[in-house]
Amino acid sequence: MKKIRLGIVGCGIAARELHFPALKELTDKFEIVAVTSRTREHAEDFAKLVSETLGSTPQVFNSYEELLLSKQVDAVDLTLPIELNVPFIKQAVEHDLHVICEKPISTDVKSGKELVEFSLQTNKVIYIAENYRHAFKYNKIRELLHEGAIGQPIFVDWHLWIGMDKENKYVKTTWRQIPKHIGGFLSDGGVHHIAALRVMLGDIEWVSGQVKRITDYLGDVDFLSTLFEFKTGVVGNYTVSYAVKGEKYFEIVGTEGKIRLTPNSIVLSGKVNEEIPLIQENTFKKEFEDFYEVLTTEKPNILGNPAEALKDLAFFEAAIKSKGEKVEIERLIKEA
Amino acid sequence: MKKIRLGIVGCGIAARELHFPALKELTDKFEIVAVTSRTREHAEDFAKLVSETLGSTPQVFNSYEELLLSKQVDAVDLTLPIELNVPFIKQAVEHDLHVICEKPISTDVKSGKELVEFSLQTNKVIYIAENYRHAFKYNKIRELLHEGAIGQPIFVDWHLWIGMDKENKYVKTTWRQIPKHIGGFLSDGGVHHIAALRVMLGDIEWVSGQVKRITDYLGDVDFLSTLFEFKTGVVGNYTVSYAVKGEKYFEIVGTEGKIRLTPNSIVLSGKVNEEIPLIQENTFKKEFEDFYEVLTTEKPNILGNPAEALKDLAFFEAAIKSKGEKVEIERLIKEA
Ligand SMILES: NC(=O)c1ccc[n+]([C@@H]2O[C@H](COP(=O)([O-])OP(=O)(O)OC[C@H]3O[C@@H](n4cnc5c(N)ncnc54)[C@H](OP(=O)(O)O)[C@@H]3O)[C@@H](O)[C@H]2O)c1
Ligand SMILES: NC(=O)c1ccc[n+]([C@@H]2O[C@H](COP(=O)([O-])OP(=O)(O)OC[C@H]3O[C@@H](n4cnc5c(N)ncnc54)[C@H](OP(=O)(O)O)[C@@H]3O)[C@@H](O)[C@H]2O)c1
Repeated sequence: MKKIRLGIVGCGIAARELHFPALKELTDKFEIVAVTSRTREHAEDFAKLVSETLGSTPQVFNSYEELLLSKQVDAVDLTLPIELNVPFIKQAVEHDLHVICEKPISTDVKSGKELVEFSLQTNKVIYIAENYRHAFKYNKIRELLHEGAIGQPIFVDWHLWIGMDKENKYVKTTWRQIPKHIGGFLSDGGVHHIAALRVMLGDIEWVSGQVKRITDYLGDVDFLSTLFEFKTGVVGNYTVSYAVKGEKYFEIVGTEGKIRLTPNSIVLSGKVNEEIPLIQENTFKKEFEDFYEVLTTEKPNILGNPAEALKDLAFFEAAIKSKGEKVEIERLIKEA
Repeated sequence: MKKIRLGIVGCGIAARELHFPALKELTDKFEIVAVTSRTREHAEDFAKLVSETLGSTPQVFNSYEELLLSKQVDAVDLTLPIELNVPFIKQAVEHDLHVICEKPISTDVKSGKELVEFSLQTNKVIYIAENYRHAFKYNKIRELLHEGAIGQPIFVDWHLWIGMDKENKYVKTTWRQIPKHIGGFLSDGGVHHIAALRVMLGDIEWVSGQVKRITDYLGDVDFLSTLFEFKTGVVGNYTVSYAVKGEKYFEIVGTEGKIRLTPNSIVLSGKVNEEIPLIQENTFKKEFEDFYEVLTTEKPNILGNPAEALKDLAFFEAAIKSKGEKVEIERLIKEA
């Protein structure tokens, strides 16, 4: 089996804590051969970590350009400040490399849409990594809904009180303190939730939203509440605060029952009464496995498709611009 | 103490099951001296109930007109199909009588607004009975919020899965099966919830909503989900289904804690951790006591004010017309 020679670009939290633990389980599929970061020391630390864990030392490059020109990699793995995603992806493709890049696709719909159009002009794979699309729980719920476990779904409600304090590691990254990406944490963290909702219930037609800024240290607005409707007619409320901490609440209500999500299980009640335990899984590993299959087989790029990632982001641009008005997602993308 | 001579108009569910149990505790304030209904037999049954319970027999009238002309009453108590509220209230006032009339004020904002204007031209009391405004729990929560028990309130969420079946006594009333009042049960039942929200959090500035019709036996749309904002900037989601039955969910989230409402208590968490048991109370009795005070003292008509009842109703007309668009409540009233 062919191994993909991978270049790691950006050696921050996601690279160290999320991607490396997955990649070290996938040494039959990926070989980390190159690494670069803004701060050379961070790239060296990363190379050392790889070397100590896997026994082979990736080459450290002084810059992205050098890495791209080295001819040593088949693909790059981008874990960067969001505003670098689009230019860095394009640059990789222009150097004839495949790309896996962390969500969200871009800072805003306009530049994300340009990337989607760009992706259609190349046969290189541009894979936007959205690990929530790979999660057991959301895919299981989609299945349950399709099986009619709660009758006709009517309504979904998701409230998240994420409450990040000043000492939170993500809050402390400087690019998040002066965010160039729309809505700061709202889109950065939020694309996960919308990806999950879309896994379960399909595309969203329109959203009406209102934002607030509760704290001064989260870089931008930090609270959002929305009303929206899926193409199927299912209506939803999604409310999130990055300032206030509290219990999450998730439920889908149907004509014959409901599904709730607890920290450890999917709870069905009504027509079916069952508690399905959540499984232990590494969604980043699944994501890299999928990326590998897309690179090495005929499998189409569905879960990492830039057009899908754009829809997740567009929800936030729509909701933030809304101020209570109805914004149609497809139209927002079309007119961007 | 002067007793108010009361004429009961409409001898249906509300009159028998809600108003009479309250009035029989208030014989020092009200005397039921007259009664009429569409079906004479129902008025006679009601008169018999009064006579058996209280020992004095009210006179049964063949029609509202006869009762109004009888000169035997100081005030009428209207518990009628909603579409009769405005014409019956006006008629009473034109016969120089005070009125207490069950919520909602009217079938729609236009006719409700006319009644509000009419109410400003008379010194007769027009009291729209909204028992939720008198409930301990909502008034207690308002107090807690004012005391800062959860810091700055940010968000309120209220989901109600009321689920009425075909055998429900309200569903079986014919006027609810072909409703002339906007949104059927949505406004009929819903004005209570909006009245409660306004007790707790003040006036609502705008709403965006979406309705659905889930069942065929509830007369009209039977599901509503909304996003809205209070004048104070607190944002809310209010979702209700009269078709689907399930657990209610109510919470107000603030910067320093939250308030949840359970069937038996108000639960505070965060800055304050406390469970306040709900008290046993008859809100209809409180309502009649308030009406009595308004009639017999200088107390202004605040809790039964038609303008307040109109705002509760306007929320629903706005939310139903919205289809996801933002509708400003005051503007809707102004332009009606
Ligand atoms: N899927 C998830 O659950 C998840 C979780 C977290 C983050 N993410 C995503 O991952 C991405 C990175 O987030 P993070 O939290 O890891 O941020 P981070 O810790 O700030 O990491 C960003 C990295 O990019 C490097 N960098 C900045 N400019 C660069 C340049 N011009 N060339 C090369 N490297 C550069 C930084 O370099 P130095 O450190 O060397 O200065 C840093 O290591 C974001 O897109 C974020 O949305 C996803
Ligand atoms: N606050 C609350 O919790 C609450 C609860 C329930 C209802 N309500 C309100 O109370 C009102 C009545 O509702 P309901 O459930 O009691 O309805 P209901 O049982 O149908 O009662 C309506 C009554 O009006 C009578 N009626 C109809 N047309 C009439 C006419 N032209 N002249 C005299 N009487 C006439 C009917 O007469 P017959 O029976 O004699 O034919 C019936 O007794 C509504 O405004 C509703 O919103 C409030």
